[in-house]
Parts: sequence; C-alpha cells; structure tokens
Amino acid sequence: MFETTYYEDYELNHERKTFGRTMTEGDIIVHAGQTGDFFPHHMDEEWCKTQDFKKRLVHGTLTFSVGVGLTASVINPVAMTYGYERLRFIKPVHIGDTLRTTVTITDKKDHKRPQFGIVTEHLEVTNQRGETVMVCDHLLLVEKKAGKASVETNGAAPG
Amino acid sequence: MFETTYYEDYELNHERKTFGRTMTEGDIIVHAGQTGDFFPHHMDEEWCKTQDFKKRLVHGTLTFSVGVGLTASVINPVAMTYGYERLRFIKPVHIGDTLRTTVTITDKKDHKRPQFGIVTEHLEVTNQRGETVMVCDHLLLVEKKAGKASVETNGAAPG
Amino acid sequence: MFETTYYEDYELNHERKTFGRTMTEGDIIVHAGQTGDFFPHHMDEEWCKTQDFKKRLVHGTLTFSVGVGLTASVINPVAMTYGYERLRFIKPVHIGDTLRTTVTITDKKDHKRPQFGIVTEHLEVTNQRGETVMVCDHLLLVEKKAGKASVETNGAAPG
Amino acid sequence: MFETTYYEDYELNHERKTFGRTMTEGDIIVHAGQTGDFFPHHMDEEWCKTQDFKKRLVHGTLTFSVGVGLTASVINPVAMTYGYERLRFIKPVHIGDTLRTTVTITDKKDHKRPQFGIVTEHLEVTNQRGETVMVCDHLLLVEKKAGKASVETNGAAPG
Amino acid sequence: MFETTYYEDYELNHERKTFGRTMTEGDIIVHAGQTGDFFPHHMDEEWCKTQDFKKRLVHGTLTFSVGVGLTASVINPVAMTYGYERLRFIKPVHIGDTLRTTVTITDKKDHKRPQFGIVTEHLEVTNQRGETVMVCDHLLLVEKKAGKASVETNGAAPG
Amino acid sequence: MFETTYYEDYELNHERKTFGRTMTEGDIIVHAGQTGDFFPHHMDEEWCKTQDFKKRLVHGTLTFSVGVGLTASVINPVAMTYGYERLRFIKPVHIGDTLRTTVTITDKKDHKRPQFGIVTEHLEVTNQRGETVMVCDHLLLVEKKAGKASVETNGAAPG
Repeated sequence: MFETTYYEDYELNHERKTFGRTMTEGDIIVHAGQTGDFFPHHMDEEWCKTQDFKKRLVHGTLTFSVGVGLTASVINPVAMTYGYERLRFIKPVHIGDTLRTTVTITDKKDHKRPQFGIVTEHLEVTNQRGETVMVCDHLLLVEKKAGKASVETNGAAPG
Repeated sequence: MFETTYYEDYELNHERKTFGRTMTEGDIIVHAGQTGDFFPHHMDEEWCKTQDFKKRLVHGTLTFSVGVGLTASVINPVAMTYGYERLRFIKPVHIGDTLRTTVTITDKKDHKRPQFGIVTEHLEVTNQRGETVMVCDHLLLVEKKAGKASVETNGAAPG
Repeated sequence: MFETTYYEDYELNHERKTFGRTMTEGDIIVHAGQTGDFFPHHMDEEWCKTQDFKKRLVHGTLTFSVGVGLTASVINPVAMTYGYERLRFIKPVHIGDTLRTTVTITDKKDHKRPQFGIVTEHLEVTNQRGETVMVCDHLLLVEKKAGKASVETNGAAPG
Repeated sequence: MFETTYYEDYELNHERKTFGRTMTEGDIIVHAGQTGDFFPHHMDEEWCKTQDFKKRLVHGTLTFSVGVGLTASVINPVAMTYGYERLRFIKPVHIGDTLRTTVTITDKKDHKRPQFGIVTEHLEVTNQRGETVMVCDHLLLVEKKAGKASVETNGAAPG
Repeated sequence: MFETTYYEDYELNHERKTFGRTMTEGDIIVHAGQTGDFFPHHMDEEWCKTQDFKKRLVHGTLTFSVGVGLTASVINPVAMTYGYERLRFIKPVHIGDTLRTTVTITDKKDHKRPQFGIVTEHLEVTNQRGETVMVCDHLLLVEKKAGKASVETNGAAPG
Repeated sequence: MFETTYYEDYELNHERKTFGRTMTEGDIIVHAGQTGDFFPHHMDEEWCKTQDFKKRLVHGTLTFSVGVGLTASVINPVAMTYGYERLRFIKPVHIGDTLRTTVTITDKKDHKRPQFGIVTEHLEVTNQRGETVMVCDHLLLVEKKAGKASVETNGAAPG
C-alpha cells in the first residue's frame, strides 16, 4: 500500500506497533547461510551450553533485519532511509522468542537541502515477556510539502 | 578459529579486507522471506523500471547483514558487540554486485566499567567498481588485560 | 493491520490490485524443495527446450500460492477462507515474469448458519504483459453484523 | 519416470496413496517468504495462543502445495492439469503434523476437443491421526488413444 | 514407491538414467548456507573472473549431493548405503549447467555377513554437453533372498 | 583467508578440529529441496517411528556436505580437491545432533605429474557424544615447492 506522508505531517510521539514474529531455528540457519556468519554462538548448541547465554543466539544482524522488516507495511513514496543510529542489542534473543517492534516518532529536523527534513523513528524491539531486546533510531529523509521536488533517490533501500 | 585479542592490543588504523560476496536474486528473495519486507523496490522488476533506480534494490538490512557477516572470520572471546553507529547507505546495491568489507580500527576509549574498553571498527562496504555502498561504525566492548574479569555477556550476538 | 469488515459491508464489484512480484529461478527451486515436485518441466532447462513451452515453468501450485499471497495485506478478523473454486492456469508462467493479482468481489450469498455469509473474491493473476495467467474464486466465510457471533475458526488458514 | 496413460486407461475408483511428509516450522517460514503472507496466524506463536486454534497454522496454500506435490511421482506425457475445483480446508494443520495424500479417480468425461477427455482425481490430504485436513478435485486434460494428437500444452504446470 | 530387489536380482551392467536438474545460482547460495563453505570460488563472481575457471563453481559437495539425489526415485527396503568410493570431480560445474546421472551396476560381491551382498552402482554425472563432470561408486549392502534376515539398519541414510 | 602450504609442508599426523554445527530440522528440509531426495526416512516422522532408527535421518549427502564444509576455513591456493575415498556412514545422524570434524593428515605420496603430490586428509565426523558418524579420506592435489608450476585447475570445486 502506498500512502504519501510529507515531512510536515509526521507527528512527534506518534507510536505504532507491528505484528509479532516468532524467531525459529530455521531463521538462524537461513541467516547464517546468507551472511556466512557460522559462529558457534548461533550454530553449535553443545558449545552454547558451556557459555553464559546457554542457548543458541539469534544473530544481531537478524534481529535488526526482522525488527526493521516488521515495520515495512506502508510505503511512503516521499520518504527514504537516510541511515540508522544508536543501534544496541540489549538482551539476547533465542529460538522461540517472539519479536515485535514499536515505532515512535522522536525527532524532526531540517535537512541542508531545504526541500527535505529528517524524521527520526525510534524502533524498540521487544520479546514475548515485554523485555526490550534491541533499539535503534531510523532516520528518514522526507520531502516537504513546500518543497515538492521529487525525492532524489540515492540508492538506499527503503527499509 | 578463536583468537584472543585484549583491548590493549587493538591497533588504531589497523585495516583488514574480507572476501567478496556476489549478491544474487535469490538473496533478495530469501531476505524478503525472512524479514517480511516485500516492497516492490525489491520484488517487482517491472515497477522498478519505472523508478529512478531502474533495477531491483538489495534491502538495506541485507547489505548490512552481509557487510557485517563478511567480517565474521575470527572469534575473539574477550570481545562482544556493543552496538552500531552512523549506519549509512551511500549507493544502491543491485543483483550481481559483489560486496566486500574493509574494517579499520578508528577509535579506542575507556568504558565506565574499568575492566573494559570500547573499540570502534569502521566498516566500509564497497562494490566491484570500488564504490562505497555502505558504512557504519561497529562498537566492540573488549576486555582489558588488566581487568581479567570474564566478559559478562549481556546477550548481544557477537556479530 | 487488522480491519474488521462484516458481510454486509462487502461491496459487489469492488476491485483492488496488489503489488507485483517477479518470479525468480530461486522461487522455483525453493518450491520444488517444499513440495517435492522435481518434474523436469520446472527443473531441467535442457529438456524444456525440447518441449512446446521451451522454458522452465513455474509450478502451478507456486503461481497459486504467490497469487493468493499477494492479496494478504489486511487481516479481517471476522472472515476466513471457506475454500477455492474454478482454479485455472490460463497461460504459462516463466522465470522473470512479474505477477500481480486483481481481486474483485463477484458474489455474496447466505450461509446455512444464519450469522454468516459467503463472499466470493475473484482472483485474476496477470503478468507484465497484462495477460491473465491464473484465475480462481476465493470463497470467504464472513460474519454478519446482525450475527455478532465470534467466528468459529474451523482451522483453515486465512490465506 | 515417464509413463504414458491415455484417457481410456484411467480406471474409475482407482486409488493410490503417497508417501507422508511431516510439516515443519521451517516450511512455514519458507512459505511465508515465498508468498509474502506473514499473517500472525502463521508467524506469531504468542498471538496464536490467544486464538481458538492455539498454535501456528500451516498456510492453506502450503497445505495445498504439499498435498498436490506429494502426488508428483510419475509423469504422464499425455496428461496435463486443467484446473482444480472444490478446494476445502477441513481441519487445521499445525507444525509436526504428517500429511499424505490419497488420490482417487472419481470422474471421467469428454472434452469439447474430441481427442481429449477430462479425468477427475479427488485428492484427500490426511494427517497422522487419519483426519482429513484438505480435499480438492484435480481436473486433468488427457489425450485419448483414438485422438493421437499431441497435447497442445497451454502452459499450465503439470502439478 | 517401494520396490523390493534382493541381491540376487541386481543385474550386472544394468543401466538407468535419471531426470536432469539445472544448477542455479540459488543452489550455490543455499548450499553455501548449509555447509558454511563461502569460499570465493563459489561466492565471488569478480574474483572468479581472475581465475582459470572464470566463473563461479558449484561446490563439489553440491554436485555430489545432487548427483546422488537424482537417483533417489525408488526405495528398496532390503538395501542400504554402505559407502562411496572413488569420488572424482572431472570437470567444473557452473551455474546453468544441467546435470543428470547414469547409474550402472558394475560389481556384486559377497559380504562377510552371509545373508548380505555388496552391490556397486557406478554413478556418472554428465552435463548438457554430455561431458562427465563427476563419478563415484556407490556401495549398497543388499539382503539376499536366501538370507531373509531383516536388514540391521546401522544408521546410514539411504541416499 | 588465503594461506599457501606446499606439499612439502604438510605434516603427517597433523590434526585439527573444526567448530561444531547442530543439525536442524530445517537443514533436512532444505537438503531434500536441493537434492530431490524426499524419501520418508528424512521427511516422514510417523513412518520413521515404525522403523528401527525411530527418528528422521539426516541425509548421508548432507552429513557429508556439512562434515566437509566445516573444514573450509583457510584457502590454500596451491591445493585442490582430487577426490574422496572410503566414505562410510557409521552411525545415524538425527535432528539436534551436533557435528564436528577432525582432520588428520594420514598420507602423502607423489603424483604422476612431478610437480604435484597427493595429500590425504582423513575426515572423522563425530557427534555430541563423541561417537563417529562418518569418515572419509579427502585427497588433495598439492603443488610442490620445487615444481612452482601454477596449479592447472581442472574444475573440481575446492571443497
């Protein structure tokens, strides 16, 4: 679904919650396969038993990918990803944990190109016990109504 | 391979380069499947032809996952991921592009817990034309020799 | 996104179009893997060259799965799949074809349980040349406002 | 294996049973990935606990794909899929259920093109408790011996 | 399909040919993912251009897995894999090559347990140009009619 | 990582151990998908219960692929796979078993081309109980220092 939202229309403190997503053993295998990260933290159940975290860990990059992916429901054609800041992994994520993301608009500021602004979406990924497992700030470059210039896509994927 | 490197032994400006990884159409499909991000930017070749970027884009989260994953070769048992900063997608990544990552130690600083320091690895992901497509700073929490305390793993995945 | 629509509120002839989805070689491989259907029609490029259709065919069950999956955007908690009728594969689907689905409400009728009605969604899957490759009728069991009974889920998946 | 069976040689009431196939959590993940259907019915274990069906559901399209795929053992070069009718999901399918399909020839009738007939294979998919979870009628367009015309493949996948 | 064939009924020089299977880019990615072998020979198109073989290579273990897998059509309940000998990779396999396997019974000999014999299936995997890319000898432990003892499965997978 | 080791520098009886890898249900599904081997030994939990081995078996080709893949850490640019001998599946591998490989140099001998030698790596794959589940001999064609000829890659994949 496409839904145009200009910079001016983003509301500070607006919050939305995504669906949940249960992390599975297969997700870890597939992500190891995509990234080449076969560290025993993710792949070797026996070794993990000897570590403090006891059970195989979901890759940080996977928690990030899923946490962000869950937010990909509506396409705003006048916004694009500028970058991410302050990405932190707060608690371990294990097989069987169910993640969901809460997105809050926490900041808006002008961009050096006057027809754009930067909107900060704060992403908080929680598990089924309500514990925060990951946070980050997603910076969006958003067109201003005033500007009306079409976004110069610089190649960053939307998510 | 495990190889212990204490905080004191990280050398500023030390640089290493990873193997390359050609991004394939199948990678996009699999990543869409993992994240649920089926935006037409990634999945609809026909729609992409009507956009400025012309061809399907590799998800930003996938570029990040692969860019980081490529660096996962040696395990340092006294280091763990603290977080990521200044993640930026500089150029689009398309099917057939070959990515590799250059890792440079760009900063070291003390942590509030005296037995640890924070090491910054700057990651620069380039394509086969030598263009930078993504950058970020990877913050590592690393044990000090002096400290000798075993790392209190707080659950963040190593990569 | 959840959005409640009662039987009474489905409008005959209402039409919506989904995003597009380019079918890839990897999709065929994965679907063969899921279903065990490794017929040379899908897996053997050389043999296909000797057949009338010349190029590897997307499995009918995959065209159906994707054609239906594309419509899975909004969850109506008072509706569930009753079944499918008149599923026909009209034209071959090949690697590289981009599919999208048009959903039209073509019928509404009472169900023997008075608090429900049956809504027929006609699905038409087209390719990038606007040719129809698949059609079917998706029957939905939908709660009536009058009824107000909660749907007795009988186990059919929503899609 | 190729094995030619002409219309005349299909026997009414002939029945065959396929191998079994245990549905896994990974199958759901992969199917969500292929279809884009990430509804919480399939992906969110916690939400499912709050619903009548209690546990994650196998997608209807996946049950269909596997139920049909299990029957893909012998290729009849003079038969092709004409379509499917009366597809119904009778009982929920959950992770760990083992499906197998019973195929019964339930109908034969002439086709408007005189060198062909339509054979109906009734597919009944059962679980490990012998409960029927899905049924459908698979219509095959089959060449007649008399006809001897080579099948004009119209592009429908064989399965 | 199950089909019982006792040791006595294997015929020397009997030959069968499998279906073909086109190797895809996605197959390499998936196999790298399963095995953790991300060597640039398979994953880095740019590096491969600088090597004698010019193009990404299908993993040897994948050629073996597919070459053997293609032969898995009929289950003989009185036979099991004893092992493999003389596995050789004769020619490179690249993306787009179509493999098929020819299976020839090349040897039969008694086993120390008198109720069994060892049957050697010679597997020859060829590409679409008829070139041999891989060979191996598949040793089967097969029950003798005389013996009638049920096979003591020692855990080797059938394929 | 590339690390050149000439024939002369391989040391008899040198031993190394790989990381571990827990075999998952998803691995079996993916491997069945790649190879087309959907035998009930791997796919049908209910049928397996009726057999001596009781639980689904990991495919032999998968155990081999993972057992070999685990050893793929350092690339020796002057060595290549010549073949495999004496591959035996000693014990069944089930879902949840954690495999690791011990590699021992067991033989060195000249090759008919004087600038090469053949090095035998004996691979022993063990499970979490220390039981050997698979063995094989991996023959490497390795350049001699004396020779200095560049390896004529004959197309066999490195692993």
